[in-house]
This record gives sequence, C-alpha cells and structure tokens, in this order.
Amino acid sequence: MATNRQFVLAQRPDGVPDDEDFDLVETDVPEPGPREVLVRTRYLSVDPYMRDRMREGESYAEPWAVGDALRGAVVGEVVESNHPDYEAGDTVTGNLVWADYAVADGADVVAVETGDLRDSVALGVLGMPGRTAYFGVTDVLDPDPGDTVVVSAAAGAVGSVVGQLAKLNGCRVVGIAGSDAKVEYLTDDLGFDAGINYADADVADALAEAAPRGVDAYFDNVGGDITDAVFAHLNVRASVAVCGQIALYNEEGVTMGPRKLPRLVETRARVEGFLVGDYAPRFEEASERLAQWVQSGDVQFRETVADGLENAPDAFVGLFEGENVGKQVVRVEAEFDGS
Amino acid sequence: MATNRQFVLAQRPDGVPDDEDFDLVETDVPEPGPREVLVRTRYLSVDPYMRDRMREGESYAEPWAVGDALRGAVVGEVVESNHPDYEAGDTVTGNLVWADYAVADGADVVAVETGDLRDSVALGVLGMPGRTAYFGVTDVLDPDPGDTVVVSAAAGAVGSVVGQLAKLNGCRVVGIAGSDAKVEYLTDDLGFDAGINYADADVADALAEAAPRGVDAYFDNVGGDITDAVFAHLNVRASVAVCGQIALYNEEGVTMGPRKLPRLVETRARVEGFLVGDYAPRFEEASERLAQWVQSGDVQFRETVADGLENAPDAFVGLFEGENVGKQVVRVEAEFDGS
Repeated sequence: MATNRQFVLAQRPDGVPDDEDFDLVETDVPEPGPREVLVRTRYLSVDPYMRDRMREGESYAEPWAVGDALRGAVVGEVVESNHPDYEAGDTVTGNLVWADYAVADGADVVAVETGDLRDSVALGVLGMPGRTAYFGVTDVLDPDPGDTVVVSAAAGAVGSVVGQLAKLNGCRVVGIAGSDAKVEYLTDDLGFDAGINYADADVADALAEAAPRGVDAYFDNVGGDITDAVFAHLNVRASVAVCGQIALYNEEGVTMGPRKLPRLVETRARVEGFLVGDYAPRFEEASERLAQWVQSGDVQFRETVADGLENAPDAFVGLFEGENVGKQVVRVEAEFDGS
Repeated sequence: MATNRQFVLAQRPDGVPDDEDFDLVETDVPEPGPREVLVRTRYLSVDPYMRDRMREGESYAEPWAVGDALRGAVVGEVVESNHPDYEAGDTVTGNLVWADYAVADGADVVAVETGDLRDSVALGVLGMPGRTAYFGVTDVLDPDPGDTVVVSAAAGAVGSVVGQLAKLNGCRVVGIAGSDAKVEYLTDDLGFDAGINYADADVADALAEAAPRGVDAYFDNVGGDITDAVFAHLNVRASVAVCGQIALYNEEGVTMGPRKLPRLVETRARVEGFLVGDYAPRFEEASERLAQWVQSGDVQFRETVADGLENAPDAFVGLFEGENVGKQVVRVEAEFDGS
C-alpha cells in the first residue's frame, strides 16, 4: 500500500497562522468506494477565505473542527475510477483535501480542459478567482465606460483579473498593491492606468492624484485602512463590491473602524457583499469567456507556485504577507507507485 | 410696513444645538420681485438633516454660513403674487426660510391640495417624509411578501410610513422606537407586528425574539448602536436602505464603530444610501399613491405641532431627543396686517 500525506488543522490559529496550526499526517492512500474516484493531486489552491474556516463561530462557510482535514480547490489526475464519467488519466478539479491523494464522489469533481495552459489555471484565472472577478465586475459593479474603477489586492489572483476586465469595459483602472514591483506589473504588464503602493504611500492622498474624478466603483479584496481611504473618495452613486477582507481575517472578534453609513447617505453609494458560489449556475459562462480572453491575450495572468505539499501552510500564510503575485498554488505531484 | 421675524444661524452648534445657535431677527416683510410670490408661513418643517447643514465641511447639502437664514420645507398662503401661476389665497409649499413671511420665485413653489386634511400634511405624510418612505420601500428595499422588515425611528415621520407600506406589501414589520408609548402606537394603531423600545431593551436580544427568522430588509433612520445591533441579524441577501443617521448628526468628525463590511461578505447583503431628492421626477407618483392610502385609511399618521415661530429651534432640537411622534411641524400663522 502506498503512503499518503494529508494536512489536518492541529489547532485554531491565534492571529496569523503558523506551522504549529497544521499537522501533516501519514495515512494509507484511500480506496475509492462506489461511484468514487481516486485523485492524485497536481496543484492545490490556498485562498484567503480559508482563514475564516479555521476560526470558531459562524461565517459563510462551516468552520473546520480541530483535527479536520484542510480542504480546498485541487486539480489532479484520476488514478482509479468507480464512476462511469471518469477514467484513469482524466484531469479533474474539485473541492478536495490537502493531500497527495484524495477520494471524491464522481459527482463532486469536474473535468478540466485547459488546452495549452498548465492545469493550475483551473485554480486561478479560469477557476474560482477568475470567476469571482468576472461576476464581481459584470454583475455587482457593472461600471460604465469612462468610470474610474479601483481594486485592492490588485496584483492578486482576483484583483489582477478585475482590473483587466474593467479595462476591457473602457474604464479608468487604479490598482492598490503592496510593493513597487507589483505596481509596475499592474501598469506596465496589465495596462492599469495607475497603481498605488500602499506600503509606501498615504492611500487617500495617492487616490486624489490617481483618481482625480473620484471613484465610481471599488472592488474590495482587503477591507481595513485601505478601504477606509477609498471610501473617502467615493463618488455619488458609486458601487462597492465587497469580495474579501484579508486585512481583518487574522483579527479576533469584531474590529472597529470609521463608520461608513453616513458616507453612504452623502454619496448614495451601494455596497454589496458577494460570494462567487452564489453564481454557480453561471460558472460555465464565466469560464468560457475568461478562456477566450486568456486565449486572445486580453487577460494576462501570473501564478506563484510553491513546490511540495509540505509547503502548503507557508504558501497559505504568505497570502497574508502579500508574497504572491497572481494566483498562489502549491504543486504537489506525488509519484503514484501503483502498489 | 408690517414686521417679519426670521431665524438665522447664530453660530455653528457644538454637539446638540441649543438656543444660542439660533437668532430670531426682525426685518421688514420682504417685497416680492418680478415673478416672485410673497408667502405667509402656516407651518414649517424641522428635519434631522438640517443638523448637517449647520456644520462646516462637505455633505450632500451645502453647509449654511453663520448668519444665513435657516431654510426648509414650508407650507403657507400666497399673500401677494407677481407670478402668473399663483394668486393671493393660494396654498403653496416650497423650500423657504424659517420666517413669518418669505418670498420665492413662483417656479420654486408648488400648489398644495390636501383635501380635508390640514395643510401640514404637505410637510409630512404627503410631503418629503412620506415620499422618502415610499421610494425607500418600493425602490431601495423592495421587500417580498413574508420578508421581515425592520425600521428604526419607527414612530417618526418617515419610519411610521415605512412600516405601514411594508405591511401593505405583506411583510412582517418590526419597529424600533424610544419609548413604550411609541411602541404601543406602532403595534396597536399602525399594525406593526412587533416593536422594540431601545431605551429599555438590548436591541440585539430583542430582535432575536421580534425577528426570529432574521432581518431581510432594514430601513435605517438612525445609525449608531441600534444599527449595529440590526446588522448582527441580517439574513443572506438582506437589503439595507440608509436614509438617516440621526444618532451621529451631533458628533463631530468621523465616529468609530464595529466594521460592517465583513458582515456583508457573510450575508451578501446590499447596503444603499439614498436621498429622496434623487427621485424628484417621480414625486407626483409618490404623493398620489400616498394620498390614496391616507384616504383609504391604509396609511395613518400623526403630527407633533409646536406653536409659534419662536419655538422652531426647540422643536428642531427635540427631534434628537425623540420628543416627536410622527411629523414634527411648527405652526406659525402670523397675522398679516396688510399695511
């Protein structure tokens, strides 16, 4: 029997997670039951929202219990199938455990077709982050050509696509990111009109220059101080899509900040939280359009790849330190010994 | 020449306004110029939003300068007209100074038809507050039958109409107000399903009982702690209409409170600020429908009347102490001596 490794939640993190919060345990490679498939992980996705599942209490996702396997988007190869839709060698994606091998009901995975692209794009530009950007821009923000659109965590997996979709829509796009290199990537490679390095600038002041006609639409991935600064620049009838609040995920309990509702009366702005999962019936539409844009070069992307399952926790923690450009994935690629 | 009295802003209030912030000055009765009308005030309206105009700095309304006449919705009688649309004896409403007499361009007033009702309804249920409730419920919240709708300042000019319109729409309605008498008014007279006296209850706890299936729509007139408590009960895809923030109007600068955007991601709620002025092209629609509902008894209303122009500042300050039930107006009714 081949061995398998999988991560479980060792304890609930206190603030920023560290190594002690994760346990890598050895198990047998699981056996697929009826209608199940055995998947060998090629890439797994680490995403900020996972931090929320590590805490106790209510959220939009069920919290993990201590001892539970960590779980997220994975792309991998079917190595054994008891499901009529799949056979060994197929590439599939699904919500699977962080492990070398995982079993899943065949109904819970989908086939991946990435053409010439690396499989990992199914976790990034053509996966959940790309679709998040797509629905956030087209459905929640719905900016008009000429509008000024601001996006935070702009060099990340979601933000980089948000900005490019807004550019395709004829908007002026300003990205906020955490280093000069990222800002350069936004303006030089992705065609953003302006970028702000929040580590090095007063965001409110910088926005006065980068968005001289104010902010018509804001795609918020971060929350906290950066978002406070953007709110001060919202135009009348602005729209705000609240996608993530990574600045707050490592805080315990409710954090305090400047009250925003008075500003909403002044501006008659609309602020809307959204989750990509609510758009599941339209995932195909999003992935098809994103694939076309990637094909045509209208949407470019980068990935940051960590090597080895054992490095998944570090890759995850790196998200909160802004270490990734574009989608952060972990390459696993266990060797399957077939025994 | 008859004398006229009018209020000017004596100084910018520090916190809750008091008598020293208002000056009642005597002037001559003004002469209407070409195309102007001279209006004798019957009732003037005091509204929370006026507090915002008394402070320096940006808001949705231009701030008044110290020395400026206070101004707001007035209903009165045309006593002299140089405008072809009006003649002496007509009842009109418009945005006029707080005075016994005011002149206005004939284009800036509109004729009032209140049928059997007191003219003051043009300042309340059939005026700006009634229309605010109408557009807030029909356009911003747009609740479904069966939804739980919560309204703050529920016994006020706007809130009392909001709750009744939501009831007409088949919703479960919970009103938050500041006394047992007001709560009784809501439930016994206006047909609200439940009421919460915020002065006497933990609002979050009381909501758990009054809105056991959570809050689908919230019409916010107050902001601050009460609104914080309601946010904790928002359902998935809830909507929030931010109309007023009276709890914060007497605060200087930006106040701090629990951050709400994380809650929006959890609930995918939509929060929208609105101003009734943005719906000006549809004022007639609102007033006609409100008049029908008042006629049929589906919408009931009360007014709190202060007597005498000199008491306008006290009536205004009383708004922040919750002294009014329904619309607060000031009856002026100067005698016109015609000389």
